[in-house]
Amino acid sequence: MNRRQFNSTVVSMVPLVTSMRRQAAAHLRVDGGRLNSRLAELGKVGATPEGGTHRLAYSDTDLEARSYVIKLMQDAKLDVSIDAAGNIVGRRAGTAGTDGSLKPIAMGSHIDSVPSGGRYDGQVGSMGAIEVARTLDENHIRLRHPMEVIIFQNEEGGTIGSAAIARGLTEKELGLIANSKKSIREGIKFIGGDPERLSAAVRKKGDLAGYLELHIEQGGILDQEKISIGIVEGIVGVFWWDVTIEGFANHAGTTPMNQRHDALLAAAKYIDAVNRIVTSVPGRQVGTVGKIQAFPGAYNIIPGKVTTSLGLRDLDASKVQMLYDKIQVEIPRIEQATGTKFSFRQVNASQPAPTDERFRKVIEESAKQLTLSSKVLPSGAGHDAQEIAQLCPIGMIFIPSRNGISHSPLEFSQPEDITNGANVLLQTLLKLDTMT
Amino acid sequence: MNRRQFNSTVVSMVPLVTSMRRQAAAHLRVDGGRLNSRLAELGKVGATPEGGTHRLAYSDTDLEARSYVIKLMQDAKLDVSIDAAGNIVGRRAGTAGTDGSLKPIAMGSHIDSVPSGGRYDGQVGSMGAIEVARTLDENHIRLRHPMEVIIFQNEEGGTIGSAAIARGLTEKELGLIANSKKSIREGIKFIGGDPERLSAAVRKKGDLAGYLELHIEQGGILDQEKISIGIVEGIVGVFWWDVTIEGFANHAGTTPMNQRHDALLAAAKYIDAVNRIVTSVPGRQVGTVGKIQAFPGAYNIIPGKVTTSLGLRDLDASKVQMLYDKIQVEIPRIEQATGTKFSFRQVNASQPAPTDERFRKVIEESAKQLTLSSKVLPSGAGHDAQEIAQLCPIGMIFIPSRNGISHSPLEFSQPEDITNGANVLLQTLLKLDTMT
Repeated sequence: MNRRQFNSTVVSMVPLVTSMRRQAAAHLRVDGGRLNSRLAELGKVGATPEGGTHRLAYSDTDLEARSYVIKLMQDAKLDVSIDAAGNIVGRRAGTAGTDGSLKPIAMGSHIDSVPSGGRYDGQVGSMGAIEVARTLDENHIRLRHPMEVIIFQNEEGGTIGSAAIARGLTEKELGLIANSKKSIREGIKFIGGDPERLSAAVRKKGDLAGYLELHIEQGGILDQEKISIGIVEGIVGVFWWDVTIEGFANHAGTTPMNQRHDALLAAAKYIDAVNRIVTSVPGRQVGTVGKIQAFPGAYNIIPGKVTTSLGLRDLDASKVQMLYDKIQVEIPRIEQATGTKFSFRQVNASQPAPTDERFRKVIEESAKQLTLSSKVLPSGAGHDAQEIAQLCPIGMIFIPSRNGISHSPLEFSQPEDITNGANVLLQTLLKLDTMT
Repeated sequence: MNRRQFNSTVVSMVPLVTSMRRQAAAHLRVDGGRLNSRLAELGKVGATPEGGTHRLAYSDTDLEARSYVIKLMQDAKLDVSIDAAGNIVGRRAGTAGTDGSLKPIAMGSHIDSVPSGGRYDGQVGSMGAIEVARTLDENHIRLRHPMEVIIFQNEEGGTIGSAAIARGLTEKELGLIANSKKSIREGIKFIGGDPERLSAAVRKKGDLAGYLELHIEQGGILDQEKISIGIVEGIVGVFWWDVTIEGFANHAGTTPMNQRHDALLAAAKYIDAVNRIVTSVPGRQVGTVGKIQAFPGAYNIIPGKVTTSLGLRDLDASKVQMLYDKIQVEIPRIEQATGTKFSFRQVNASQPAPTDERFRKVIEESAKQLTLSSKVLPSGAGHDAQEIAQLCPIGMIFIPSRNGISHSPLEFSQPEDITNGANVLLQTLLKLDTMT
């Protein structure tokens, strides 16, 4: 269902019997105990002594976790297959539209981790979606729409599995070496996909009626404000640049201060300027300089060259452009003050992916119905939903991350919050199913 | 001769015949053509295509260059030996004080280079000292003092050879791995020294009457001001610190700007503060941040830790302390603004080594007598003379470095300047010889 189709939806078309069932469905809940114990079970695969997981895409532990997940999906009576891109897809038929006029509503997330990551990122949404499917099956709830649970492969390596579905992978991407040391191509083969027929995994715009993803916030807003449910406004655009600063290396003892071309001093002024500019305007934009290297990098040599980075994120791409422009205004001043030369090369430009307004409304209603507090907020991190937004309307549900920590063994979400998130996912799905 | 002995010198004690000889000696000149052609010959050993030399201490090219230098020293009728530390020592007897009351005046420098270095650093002073010895021999000039030409081993690796003479080497130093991949201990053996009897190389305070070193400036002052001779005021103290900044690594997308503990932002403010503080007071002090590493060092992670450095140099150790104190006043402000924690660990503290006032005066007189312009200036770089200053009064003569470049294949000094420098060395030696 695309947005236009959604707008033309007439709720009154839904038969009365379904309406009655819907009232029963409003009282449906997932089994929180089961959900959390299975999440803990999954966390043992690739567990690290620090309490996290190290489960790199295309590793043996990835394969082991995938087997476990496939079993759980089969237990939920999903028709499980691995698509050509290596994503795990569990299908369930719908009661209406067997002629194909009603497209599937999909839910999903990922189970791979960053190196020495946590046990919640991706895993909460994956197990949550499977628990929702299991709950529907146990309660003999049939949806009008077909349903899919998709466990996307290699999210942490750049949303590879969801990109393969949303737009296909480029030859360059297939050649990239993942953290597990396999190329994406080798990795796809390793997990049961077929890199030679990747086009079979690609979906067309409109092939899905919608996509829902439950995820940990990975930030500290919900935790700090003690709010149970985050209604994701959109996934921010992520823009990265490589920055090179050319100065002139010289002897730190014999070169007077006023005759230097110190590339690291220039970098320092640049890093400070980025922070000043990004925080000079209201809003939730972020700007980060995360990488730096000074050459030659010795106590006694004035750095002649520095390579560093720039990362800007916001829901509004034009705001990112505005911040970038302000930084560019500052650069000639720094160049002049330090006798150096800057160059910027963009290396990433993933556009913002807003969530669907109606999906947000339904998530909000579901939270309210469950007497859970909620708040609209952006997702600063990238997600598979961002890729799937190219195909259909998307919605994302966040639950609190303790202290906002993620990509770390310290990553943690309360079992109660996880159960709440899965219930919001369930109720949102049930409501959306009736709306078209 | 230590400073006290020097102060008690009575010039009138020198016999009249010597005084007459001295007038003849004032017209003595080195053979500039020979000096420069030998310097060029030495430059071929370990020559790089870029026009420099790569002649690491304890390498095969070091050994080859040492053989060439030993031959030149023997041609100058010096009595050549290799001391236990691997330094090449060429001795010449004096006419007075055969009872040992007159200690030798030494001249010297080094012939090892930094990786991909130049053909002048150390080499001008080494060949200059040998040329002075040869000139004395050819002209049958006998000095009252014994004389030594010392080619110190491994200056670029931390004035190892001169330290071995001035104070002995520690076990830790002997275990250090040099750029040639040999330990200092192995290196000493490789060049003909004996690491088991290093104490034999150590001289006592007062064992030398004085030490003179000719060297390229390695800075741009003489070149810019078109001055022929630099009279070194002293060798600056070199103080290095390792600086560690602890913040908290977090997701660059999900962590709001006001909740960050960005160690790289703190480093930027620190680097800028060092520059501001060092340039805030008059003088020739320098301050350099040459090293930096950010952890984990990714586009999308706020750096949780940065390791960087601090280097401060001045002729006056108390000024260095004052600058360090001013930086320490700034640190808590940066810590508070960025939510980070700094720590400083001193890793080098080589004290300033002032040259002897009378030696400076004699160098100045010698330059004037040769109708060469001169200027008093500090040495920002470390030299073997700095170590030898622990044993006896020292003097250093600088000649211009084109564009102030050193430790580079672009290092260059004009042949005329090299000849001038050697003549100043010769005249200074002759004058000092009569003064005690």
